[in-house]
Amino acid sequence: MAEVKKGPLFITNTLTRRKEEFIPLNPPHVGMYVCGPTVYSDVHLGNVRSFITFDILYRWLTHMGYKVRYVRNITDVGHLVDDVDAGEDKIAKRARLEQLEPMEIVQKYTNGFHDVMRLFNLRNPNIEPTATAHLIDQIGMVERIVKNGYAYEANGSVYFDVPKYAEQYAYGELSGRKIDELIANTRDTEGMEEKRSPLDFAIWKKADPHHLMKWPSPWSEGFPGWHLECSAMSTKYLGRTFDIHGGGMDLKFPHHECEIAQSVAADGHAPVRYWMHGNMLTVNGRKMAKSEGNGFTPEELLTGNHKLLEKGYSAMTVRFFMLQCHYASTLDFSNAAMQAAEKGLERMMKAVALLDTLKPVPGEAVDLAALEQRCYEAMNDDLNTPVMIAELFEGVRIINSVNDGNMAMDAHGIARLKGLFHSMLFDVLGIQSTIGATNGANDETALDGLVKEFIRMRAEAKAKKDFATGDAIRDRLVALGILLKDTKEGTTWERA
Amino acid sequence: MAEVKKGPLFITNTLTRRKEEFIPLNPPHVGMYVCGPTVYSDVHLGNVRSFITFDILYRWLTHMGYKVRYVRNITDVGHLVDDVDAGEDKIAKRARLEQLEPMEIVQKYTNGFHDVMRLFNLRNPNIEPTATAHLIDQIGMVERIVKNGYAYEANGSVYFDVPKYAEQYAYGELSGRKIDELIANTRDTEGMEEKRSPLDFAIWKKADPHHLMKWPSPWSEGFPGWHLECSAMSTKYLGRTFDIHGGGMDLKFPHHECEIAQSVAADGHAPVRYWMHGNMLTVNGRKMAKSEGNGFTPEELLTGNHKLLEKGYSAMTVRFFMLQCHYASTLDFSNAAMQAAEKGLERMMKAVALLDTLKPVPGEAVDLAALEQRCYEAMNDDLNTPVMIAELFEGVRIINSVNDGNMAMDAHGIARLKGLFHSMLFDVLGIQSTIGATNGANDETALDGLVKEFIRMRAEAKAKKDFATGDAIRDRLVALGILLKDTKEGTTWERA
Repeated sequence: MAEVKKGPLFITNTLTRRKEEFIPLNPPHVGMYVCGPTVYSDVHLGNVRSFITFDILYRWLTHMGYKVRYVRNITDVGHLVDDVDAGEDKIAKRARLEQLEPMEIVQKYTNGFHDVMRLFNLRNPNIEPTATAHLIDQIGMVERIVKNGYAYEANGSVYFDVPKYAEQYAYGELSGRKIDELIANTRDTEGMEEKRSPLDFAIWKKADPHHLMKWPSPWSEGFPGWHLECSAMSTKYLGRTFDIHGGGMDLKFPHHECEIAQSVAADGHAPVRYWMHGNMLTVNGRKMAKSEGNGFTPEELLTGNHKLLEKGYSAMTVRFFMLQCHYASTLDFSNAAMQAAEKGLERMMKAVALLDTLKPVPGEAVDLAALEQRCYEAMNDDLNTPVMIAELFEGVRIINSVNDGNMAMDAHGIARLKGLFHSMLFDVLGIQSTIGATNGANDETALDGLVKEFIRMRAEAKAKKDFATGDAIRDRLVALGILLKDTKEGTTWERA
Repeated sequence: MAEVKKGPLFITNTLTRRKEEFIPLNPPHVGMYVCGPTVYSDVHLGNVRSFITFDILYRWLTHMGYKVRYVRNITDVGHLVDDVDAGEDKIAKRARLEQLEPMEIVQKYTNGFHDVMRLFNLRNPNIEPTATAHLIDQIGMVERIVKNGYAYEANGSVYFDVPKYAEQYAYGELSGRKIDELIANTRDTEGMEEKRSPLDFAIWKKADPHHLMKWPSPWSEGFPGWHLECSAMSTKYLGRTFDIHGGGMDLKFPHHECEIAQSVAADGHAPVRYWMHGNMLTVNGRKMAKSEGNGFTPEELLTGNHKLLEKGYSAMTVRFFMLQCHYASTLDFSNAAMQAAEKGLERMMKAVALLDTLKPVPGEAVDLAALEQRCYEAMNDDLNTPVMIAELFEGVRIINSVNDGNMAMDAHGIARLKGLFHSMLFDVLGIQSTIGATNGANDETALDGLVKEFIRMRAEAKAKKDFATGDAIRDRLVALGILLKDTKEGTTWERA
């Protein structure tokens, strides 16, 4: 049997707009940074898609044997202001506990974000740094940029001097934008009177008196510009130049473009070798956005409690659905597509379950090495998860054929197929191997199925006037903490 | 029926060594700070006990209608050093990714800590600040202490001047220690040559070159003294003087004593009105400690995978066990005590389950208002959870009597009893209302029970040569992702 070739990995580098072989700077180490959530509101499904994309990358790199340091930040600097109407005096007199505390909001949404990541079975990053925990690093970076002449102070704020930087470096290289066009199209009015050019962006902002989050700095009591935290934290933990930086496509400009400029201006090094961007999620063909009323939360998705949802879908169905599309393509969310994914995942999980009961039949009718090879090739071709899933469905077809007695497969073949599904479906794609994964929250569904089976048997016994059996079933369930309720609509159950 | 009197709450204030009525500074707000974990190793069961104590306090204050801001910190400043043997040059040349990164360790143990808190059903604090995210605040506090003359710099480090402080303030008031005795007993040699008095403690330490975590400051590249973070973060989020500060008894001295001194020296205000300390957990009468080999982790406890454990115990059993002892008393962990708690919780959960099936019988033989009143009195008496649990067992006795037809209770009484258990057992004591809570991981146990019931029925059918029924049961379970395996020892099951 042919040896399976496990590499090399090719990924599309946004910087060069080409598919390139991935060669880490310090093998076997890989440094990977992904822009995380802003924790002042709930994460929406489009964000989840982006995080799942890089979860797959992390899992694949780990599967290939790399030692990955995966950093995903939390943006917790917020722009809440004091209740201005109350008047300065009243505010000053108010006890600390009566005042709005941004970190309380941060904690709430950070916890919520972590719950969602757990629900969708994402692996934890190795470091999850917060912007507020890296003020000193950010202030240091501003100082270096100012010292190198690529930023200037104006009225307590510090601005990055884009035209000056563009004289020497390629501002716009990542997003493909041209300086002239950018100037023509500029509409940003914030800090306009302080900026030398409309393209300049704040790397430190002086806070107005009502701003709640502010820190001392050489220029003013203020807060860092939004682009700065990722530059400071990625290089702090991964080195001045590191392997991979990922994020949603909407972050390419200005956020990531500015990250490059900041690093080059501060330290003279381009920070990132491979830039990767995940594409957007649309809903019924329209962009997902709160203003469109289609930006549903993961919770609404699970419960089906949203006008655009025909029913609830499990987190694993959503994950499977997303992976059936390449990360660089737009993905459209619709009930029809979700239900197709649900059926597909169910079919796959049933086949995986069958693997445990398959009876070996001497002979091996299929070339499993070739199937495995195609899985590797799919993932190494820019993380082509839809092709990988198609190959796994080929595996499903094989399992069903063997089960139906239409194909021979010996014990070794069955074990190999089992190994393939465990590593590719569970470890790499991160589909959870729990029962009932396709239509509910794991054990909950299996439990529900089992209880309903007992309810059915009890009804059967009652119909036959076998009340003793009916009562015995009820009692056994009570002992397990499960209470049956007979209603007009039939029997339901709940926990004790 | 008499109205239930819901207050006032009395708590033992370590500062005054008396039980005092709790009166918040800014009602209905309550500010509460608890010393959290150091995230450079696994949390052990003694820590868990302490956190559960303050979880109960948080739940009770919330139950009483207070708006609590609960802050529990994460100590993430660590003292890892570079591999000194490798030589300075080699270390300097090593890529960032190849170097030990303290924040990677911090992330691992923070995640683990959160998992444990979730397992034991603790509520999340409102703010969970980290020491590394509050360097600026800590440096500011050192500056104020120096400015006020209660600290001095020596060789890049800054020490708190205890004798100077003690001239004006009561150093030792919390722990009851006397300055003279402290001096006589001092054994601390760290920084001895720089300190003016052996009692002085570092509030800023200059880092040696191999120290991995260090920050710029007016005195040196260094790191804050351990006592400082709690002073800076508690007052930042709760105000210069706040209501309650909690922690394990081992933190009373020097940690909390130093916190008081730092706040007074920096800002002239005693920081805390009510100090509360939880007592220790011993194992078979001996102090729990890693060096004693009895400091088992929550995971070992659950699996029973430790030489001192006869079997595994569920998280809810442990929680129930801990709450059967008053927080200010030493609690001894033994297999016998755990098994008693397991049985007790099981008995209680079965009675709660019965509440849903109780048939009302006209009349009300017991005074439920009196029972409710005694629950309130127990909790208001310094969080006396063992008395509260004893009262709930009185409720269990009533439920069982009604169920056996030995006591009258109308529908209103049943509803009231149900409400009492839901609020006191589930909300206040934080026992999870899931099935099988007493002997396994929630749903898992119920699932196992149900599957075993099917296995039993299948065996029964087979014994009667009714193979069709036996096979039908097997097929239905497979459809739910549950696979039966017939072995010599009997039938077992596993997931697909």
